[in-house]
Amino acid sequence: MSAINNFEGHPPTIQGRMLDEKILNILRNSSDSYVSGEELCKLADVSRAAIWKHVEKLREEGYDIEASPHLGYRLVDIPDSLIPSEIKYALKTKVFGKEVISYKKVDSTNTIAYELAEKGIGEGASIFAEEQARGRGRHGRHWYSPAKGGIYLSCILRPKIAPNEISKITLLAAVAVAKSIRNLSPLNAMIKWPNDILVNNKKVCGILTEMKAEQDRVDFIILGIGLNVNTQARHLPKGATCLKDELCHSKIERDISRVELARNILENLEEYYSILKKEGFKPIIEEWKSLSAMLGSRIRVILQNRTFEGQAHNIDENGSLVVRLDSGVLERVSSGDIIMVR
Amino acid sequence: MSAINNFEGHPPTIQGRMLDEKILNILRNSSDSYVSGEELCKLADVSRAAIWKHVEKLREEGYDIEASPHLGYRLVDIPDSLIPSEIKYALKTKVFGKEVISYKKVDSTNTIAYELAEKGIGEGASIFAEEQARGRGRHGRHWYSPAKGGIYLSCILRPKIAPNEISKITLLAAVAVAKSIRNLSPLNAMIKWPNDILVNNKKVCGILTEMKAEQDRVDFIILGIGLNVNTQARHLPKGATCLKDELCHSKIERDISRVELARNILENLEEYYSILKKEGFKPIIEEWKSLSAMLGSRIRVILQNRTFEGQAHNIDENGSLVVRLDSGVLERVSSGDIIMVR
Repeated sequence: MSAINNFEGHPPTIQGRMLDEKILNILRNSSDSYVSGEELCKLADVSRAAIWKHVEKLREEGYDIEASPHLGYRLVDIPDSLIPSEIKYALKTKVFGKEVISYKKVDSTNTIAYELAEKGIGEGASIFAEEQARGRGRHGRHWYSPAKGGIYLSCILRPKIAPNEISKITLLAAVAVAKSIRNLSPLNAMIKWPNDILVNNKKVCGILTEMKAEQDRVDFIILGIGLNVNTQARHLPKGATCLKDELCHSKIERDISRVELARNILENLEEYYSILKKEGFKPIIEEWKSLSAMLGSRIRVILQNRTFEGQAHNIDENGSLVVRLDSGVLERVSSGDIIMVR
Repeated sequence: MSAINNFEGHPPTIQGRMLDEKILNILRNSSDSYVSGEELCKLADVSRAAIWKHVEKLREEGYDIEASPHLGYRLVDIPDSLIPSEIKYALKTKVFGKEVISYKKVDSTNTIAYELAEKGIGEGASIFAEEQARGRGRHGRHWYSPAKGGIYLSCILRPKIAPNEISKITLLAAVAVAKSIRNLSPLNAMIKWPNDILVNNKKVCGILTEMKAEQDRVDFIILGIGLNVNTQARHLPKGATCLKDELCHSKIERDISRVELARNILENLEEYYSILKKEGFKPIIEEWKSLSAMLGSRIRVILQNRTFEGQAHNIDENGSLVVRLDSGVLERVSSGDIIMVR
């Protein structure tokens, strides 16, 4: 992993990371007021020198911490960075994001997550990056992943399912992300089968699910999510957009907090994953349908060897798209690209 | 790969390997007669010192090469070792075994093959080992892989199929191996769904197919084959046997050439893989059925959460087992263990 710039430089000791977070939380809790150096030492149970070192570390991560010789320390501003101390702060999950690993720049978060999964990292571990040099989409396509503005996230899942059930995870993730966008903005996020999230008919998010599996048993799944949040338009390919630009079109000028959105996505993933386990795929399918951008619409289906048109009729119990051909025949599609026909 | 003892010590240069094989083939071609040192130098286009070095290398690999000061060199005996120069000699394939990598001992040939596949090694590349420290069966089970006697082989496949078609590869491999055993011995090898080869109702071979895949597209498949050929009975678990012992029970006392068998397996894999691509899965299924040890028999099916009995009725177009329950209802099984009920 030599090409990777970890946020934290060399991997920090767990103790060091815990101390960073301990000091940060003391400052967070005292909100706008100062905490004296002496008090901070007592609460964190370390020396003044150690406090200084860890405050410097937090500043490097983007925390604005004021230090006054007479008053002490004060947390002035927190960064909107996809770092463990922000993602995990007030995160209401037990599995997703229990372990967070963040990078400034990687080739692909899915690749990193895959390697970690092979080494045995637990379910729910979440890999974030601020930028991807070789972000990947379906079928080896490139996923534009510029710095400043996107959420590039890969989660490790270890469900006890057969390989042909992997679509369930993709569809579940699409529901989770669309719901999160709706939770934190007035934008009407919709899902385009199988793995795109659209806002105003433009793509804001892609989902890439990969797995290692035996013939009849999934070993692990990597759920990759690439979401354009505050990405500058000039960095996005044709047909794509970001949440900030779509808000702007609605006359709402603001950045969306990537940290809040990422947290909400982890929470929704946990909720729908738990529903899948307890109640099966049916409730997920129902949610998916209610968010679908195309059921009932005329579509063109592009397969490896042929192309055909029809009406997007339904999603079946395995997550396949059911298309009604002009002859009235229903055709199931489990792979391929879809174009909406006007 | 520090735990691995490659047959060839440090990876040899391609030139070195080619020279080994060139010298070996000159000696092979002169069969029982001597080739003078001078002639060998001329034919191989190298110095006497180089000849000596490569002859030593070949001897280390198990070739018995006689060197007489007056007569020259003579190939007295070849080893029954799963090394590239033996596997590839007179191998009638274009894809399978085009690249052969052999090890004395590995943890698992599937693990090595998986790593090589991730690094981009081509279709048909074949990894052999004389011994596996952590041979793997289905669902994380152990596969006994003692030295001296077994074929432990993993092939890399890159078919353009969906993940739910992986059973086709497992079944195809079972047909290939069963046919090879029948080709090279009078033993009546049969297939037990999904991935065992039986001789006289005892297991001689297991097949473990693993894959890396996206939701709708296989990236690569590792086809792992563990076959007990001349393995000593005391090294085999209960219910298992080896080809040599079954021959012995038929009053035929001989070792089976592992090299010949391995070559034949690669050739059969290539043939059936090519049939799958050109004619689809139907001809494979028909072969499979003709080799089935259980169609028509009463079986017990053990799934993750329940167990039931019925008659093994058929194999469907996806390679799933169709079981006829006592109620007459047909149930499809794509995963699980089968016990034959007497």
